[in-house]
Amino acid sequence: MSSWVEGAAGSAYDADNLPYGVFVREGEEPRVGVRIGDFVLDLAPIAAAEMLDVHAVFGEPTLNEFLAQGRPVWDSVRTWLVGLVSDETERDLVEPNLVPLDEVELRMPFAVGDYVDFYASLDHASNVGRIFRPDAEPLLPNWRHLPVGYHGRGGTVVPSGTPVVRPSGQRKGDDGPEFGPSTRLDIEAELGFVVGTGTTLGDSVTADAFADHVFGVVGLNDWSARDIQAWEYVPLGPFLGKSFATTVSAWVTPLAAFHHAWVDLPGQEPEPLPYLAPGDTSGLDIDVEVVLNGEVVSRPPYSAMYWSPAQMLAHLTVNGASIRPGDLFASGTISGPAPEQRGSFLELSWGGTEPFGDGRTFLEDGDEVVLRYTAPGTGGGRIALGEVRGRIEPAR
Amino acid sequence: MSSWVEGAAGSAYDADNLPYGVFVREGEEPRVGVRIGDFVLDLAPIAAAEMLDVHAVFGEPTLNEFLAQGRPVWDSVRTWLVGLVSDETERDLVEPNLVPLDEVELRMPFAVGDYVDFYASLDHASNVGRIFRPDAEPLLPNWRHLPVGYHGRGGTVVPSGTPVVRPSGQRKGDDGPEFGPSTRLDIEAELGFVVGTGTTLGDSVTADAFADHVFGVVGLNDWSARDIQAWEYVPLGPFLGKSFATTVSAWVTPLAAFHHAWVDLPGQEPEPLPYLAPGDTSGLDIDVEVVLNGEVVSRPPYSAMYWSPAQMLAHLTVNGASIRPGDLFASGTISGPAPEQRGSFLELSWGGTEPFGDGRTFLEDGDEVVLRYTAPGTGGGRIALGEVRGRIEPAR
Repeated sequence: MSSWVEGAAGSAYDADNLPYGVFVREGEEPRVGVRIGDFVLDLAPIAAAEMLDVHAVFGEPTLNEFLAQGRPVWDSVRTWLVGLVSDETERDLVEPNLVPLDEVELRMPFAVGDYVDFYASLDHASNVGRIFRPDAEPLLPNWRHLPVGYHGRGGTVVPSGTPVVRPSGQRKGDDGPEFGPSTRLDIEAELGFVVGTGTTLGDSVTADAFADHVFGVVGLNDWSARDIQAWEYVPLGPFLGKSFATTVSAWVTPLAAFHHAWVDLPGQEPEPLPYLAPGDTSGLDIDVEVVLNGEVVSRPPYSAMYWSPAQMLAHLTVNGASIRPGDLFASGTISGPAPEQRGSFLELSWGGTEPFGDGRTFLEDGDEVVLRYTAPGTGGGRIALGEVRGRIEPAR
Repeated sequence: MSSWVEGAAGSAYDADNLPYGVFVREGEEPRVGVRIGDFVLDLAPIAAAEMLDVHAVFGEPTLNEFLAQGRPVWDSVRTWLVGLVSDETERDLVEPNLVPLDEVELRMPFAVGDYVDFYASLDHASNVGRIFRPDAEPLLPNWRHLPVGYHGRGGTVVPSGTPVVRPSGQRKGDDGPEFGPSTRLDIEAELGFVVGTGTTLGDSVTADAFADHVFGVVGLNDWSARDIQAWEYVPLGPFLGKSFATTVSAWVTPLAAFHHAWVDLPGQEPEPLPYLAPGDTSGLDIDVEVVLNGEVVSRPPYSAMYWSPAQMLAHLTVNGASIRPGDLFASGTISGPAPEQRGSFLELSWGGTEPFGDGRTFLEDGDEVVLRYTAPGTGGGRIALGEVRGRIEPAR
């Protein structure tokens, strides 16, 4: 299944990966492309030339029309694409539509509908509990019974590379609340799941229908202002401590690329209620690297997550809430059991009390964070998800 | 400023009101209309005939394109409309485009971007505190310093008249969590504010720019499953207890119609931080009626709200979060100081312990709730906002 495209064979963007994005060439309109090696395959002209029924969706400035097509179309397009980039006889058709990555600008790949963020890592939730409530049980009573989640701001989800302006806000001070730029700006290394096929209000998505509704996966950094969050979050949850920016990868890796990445969950105790399909859903073996100014500071393993993506979607919809193409739900911070596997600076610095790396606690102006993700591919290789990059700009 | 349209003069939908909606006539496409008396004025043909620059936005199936036009266009369109329905000489132009309300179906008036719900009533927040934490201070420490809010689900905001299916979910039981249809289904009588002109990521909207960004007001019922909410909401806030449905009025009343409704806030103690423009923003004198199966069970006064709409928007954006046309933010439950002014069944029945009306605590299948809203208009009259109607269907 190796590609004939120059440089792609054996790389992290070989024919077993093929993530989707939206690209712009200078002077042209944004449209849908697929990454192969260090090229973007321009889908609209090639799909039109091959008279694919769905060719028009690739001329759109977002993936949403393609997302709405559903699993059978996603699968047949993927089969077609794998053939194009694997079969040498397709070279004359494909090669004129390969655009070098450095000649394009990548845009937000999909228009986000509703954005939900979960809290699905046992280690992260336990660490946060220990940091903020050192004398109490680290996990709250509901945590092992349901994937705790909340709605975030869909309109401030931005693509990799977008600068992040340090937010200002209200926080607790010694003499009452004060206002100013956040002093505890943090990251949360997460995965996001992109909804394709929607549902009607009143319906639920059972865990076994996950792949009918979820199109693919993005890397995600849920930037968090801990001082703003700590003061505002009772009793209705995080709001301005999160809503200033959430960065996703410019590439959406289709679910089909994770064929070799599904693994058993670490184990759920006690067994969840039947609607969460206990024992019937799987985790994903995706390795994450948190890179701060060029240095890897953490390696969170997604395989350690407690709740599965299918359980998150089953929970999200069990009350009849409908979903739409472009809805996004994220895992919450990915943390493993070891200290060097923690997916936030809050945990890496243990609430700011134990500096890590070169004496770091929270983010400083000018810092650049890159999240990198890889997963098992075919033939023992690995596929890469799109990176999630962001640099902190000073408060305005 | 009375209208010549039959039945409109002196009614709650006279020329001083003119709310916008989206209507469908049998066999036609949905488009934008304005209510006058018991008619919908079909704007697209009349704006085209008068060669208005913006006429195309009225042929859209949502208000969003019109919302994006901004305050100067909203104001000039309103001036034009008031003239059309007030000036007898316009009768020949207007009359053929008046459609009786009973010949149309009303649709969701705008496509919702992000939906934020606040918690801006002192009496509601205090009542909830007393019900759930009888031995503690009713208000949490942050409440008097910022308008507490959180993101809800934009994709499940539905127009008045949409049936509400009783949600199922997980709740605390005597022997661990259990699953089933909500047994404590409730309403929250609120107002919603509809964003027109958006902002760029990183910018804020100061309180004095409120009218540049907010187009108008809807009635809103934030249906709430108290048993689901009570179990899920720590530490990240309400999620499935709210996300199954939020009903808004089919009519969006433009801000300009509330000229006579602005009033001083009841008073804020202590004075909020400067970014909330203390003393520089106003409340709205809007009367609400909660009608259960035809009987008025409560009359919450919006004038009792602690935080102003302009303060809510200033807070929502102070961290640089951007807003878009179609974003919606709501007040939270409107409750006044008197028992008969409470805007939720939770408060009216004091947590289910003191049945009200005919022995009611929470909603039963088949119940119909209607929220009605009126405000001072011109010449001592009153304008009506669109009603918010919903009937409870049994769990699926």
